[in-house]
Amino acid sequence: MILHTIAEVREQVKKWKKEGLTVGLVPTMGALHAGHRSLIEKSVEKCDKTVVSVFVNPIQFCPGEDLDKYPRTLNEDNELCEKVGADIIFAPSPKEMYGEGHILSNDFLTYVIPPYFYVNKLCGKSRVGHFDGVCTVVNKLFNIVQPDFAFFGQKDAQQLIIIRKMVKDLNIPVEIIPCPIVREESGLALSSRNKYLNNEQKGYALALRKILFNIKACYDKGIKDIEALKETAYPYLNEHHNLEYLEFLDADTLDEKKSADDNTRVFIAVKIGDVRLIDNIML
Amino acid sequence: MILHTIAEVREQVKKWKKEGLTVGLVPTMGALHAGHRSLIEKSVEKCDKTVVSVFVNPIQFCPGEDLDKYPRTLNEDNELCEKVGADIIFAPSPKEMYGEGHILSNDFLTYVIPPYFYVNKLCGKSRVGHFDGVCTVVNKLFNIVQPDFAFFGQKDAQQLIIIRKMVKDLNIPVEIIPCPIVREESGLALSSRNKYLNNEQKGYALALRKILFNIKACYDKGIKDIEALKETAYPYLNEHHNLEYLEFLDADTLDEKKSADDNTRVFIAVKIGDVRLIDNIML
Repeated sequence: MILHTIAEVREQVKKWKKEGLTVGLVPTMGALHAGHRSLIEKSVEKCDKTVVSVFVNPIQFCPGEDLDKYPRTLNEDNELCEKVGADIIFAPSPKEMYGEGHILSNDFLTYVIPPYFYVNKLCGKSRVGHFDGVCTVVNKLFNIVQPDFAFFGQKDAQQLIIIRKMVKDLNIPVEIIPCPIVREESGLALSSRNKYLNNEQKGYALALRKILFNIKACYDKGIKDIEALKETAYPYLNEHHNLEYLEFLDADTLDEKKSADDNTRVFIAVKIGDVRLIDNIML
Repeated sequence: MILHTIAEVREQVKKWKKEGLTVGLVPTMGALHAGHRSLIEKSVEKCDKTVVSVFVNPIQFCPGEDLDKYPRTLNEDNELCEKVGADIIFAPSPKEMYGEGHILSNDFLTYVIPPYFYVNKLCGKSRVGHFDGVCTVVNKLFNIVQPDFAFFGQKDAQQLIIIRKMVKDLNIPVEIIPCPIVREESGLALSSRNKYLNNEQKGYALALRKILFNIKACYDKGIKDIEALKETAYPYLNEHHNLEYLEFLDADTLDEKKSADDNTRVFIAVKIGDVRLIDNIML
């Protein structure tokens, strides 16, 4: 069932809560793939009722990013959700979420701003304001749906860590459930932006997975020195790869690690043509 | 009943909600006076259960403000709450609210930031960061208590407008109930900071009420020109008054008014000695 208004979703969730049912939320921007499906499946398994939100959130796109050309596939999304057993797709318009004629800047809109220490690194460094937009919309979705659980993929690991921090800092009564990265058979991490890659570029994109898996293998063999581990990446990169970052950070706090340990997460971002891809792995 | 931990409050509120009872929240910084009492009375009247929070919120004090000397009178506050019929006083420690050893800056803490347009005027202009701290703690209290209604005094009119804006922007499922200003017999608006005034200063403090009531009387007689209305204030001010602002703004949006109308609120702030007093009136 697709619902487009906040009032309809609230009414439905209220009925469920009155019956004592638990509610799971899977926030997405649509263009659903097997990664999203795994989140929805987890929610359907864990909760009595599942809401999938599909909203391409304008305030998390930076100037020059792909807001207009971001894939919108609501019919296919709906099919997938129904097949997997989600109960509601919440697909609001930007007007429903932010009001009409609203200037979406912090001059006129209340924002939820994650801490600078968590934001000013990895993707947040090049995507200025991105995580402000993410936290604000996720906060809104939590207030609209009031779920017991919310499901986020570890593919966007920085996002997951920042949302957990928001939930803790603001005492939000929602439990965040992290879900593992889903990969194509080739090893490429699933992403709605993979659609932008041509076949040749898809080949180059495998470098991310190869680099991370190789670093993990080296770490397991006993290499803890981060510079040495970073060095192992370069053979996988060529002139088609624009490496944005390769970083070794604490998986909970995003503190920089002096040497690799079991709570280290390795984060990589590479641009191939115009397409920016990210991936990560736990050591 | 005084509760000091978030877990205890949540447990109690959960029980109430299971019984289908409505919950009112009156957020305060303690040092309760008849103004607060009127908020609590309103909540007791409107809701099945009432929670009064008493928390001197460090992050809404600016450098050089009175955080350390702000009056703390929990025993008297508790007596008043019980007499009026509140069910819970929630009096957490700063550690309970913000964690231990936490650096309370936006480097390490998620903040809720109200729009610049609403903040960069009136009290927000001199109290930089104040409303960020207010919105963040009120957001936390809403998430902890999950009230159906929350009660705020019109004495802090800018705060009330900003909190309503936050509730709307973030889709917070709480209804905000504004409550009228309570005044001493002399006309002085009640404030916990009145305790700082000596008798002579209390006399000077009456100027705020006189100015506002006189402006309202002039408006009712047909004067709509804001400069003319402002002019009427100066006879009430002497060398003991340090006028910070006297402004005519839209009561909902804080837009500047070109000429006074029925949706205009007049805001005044005056410093007397070290004590900063505010008051306001609807035209």
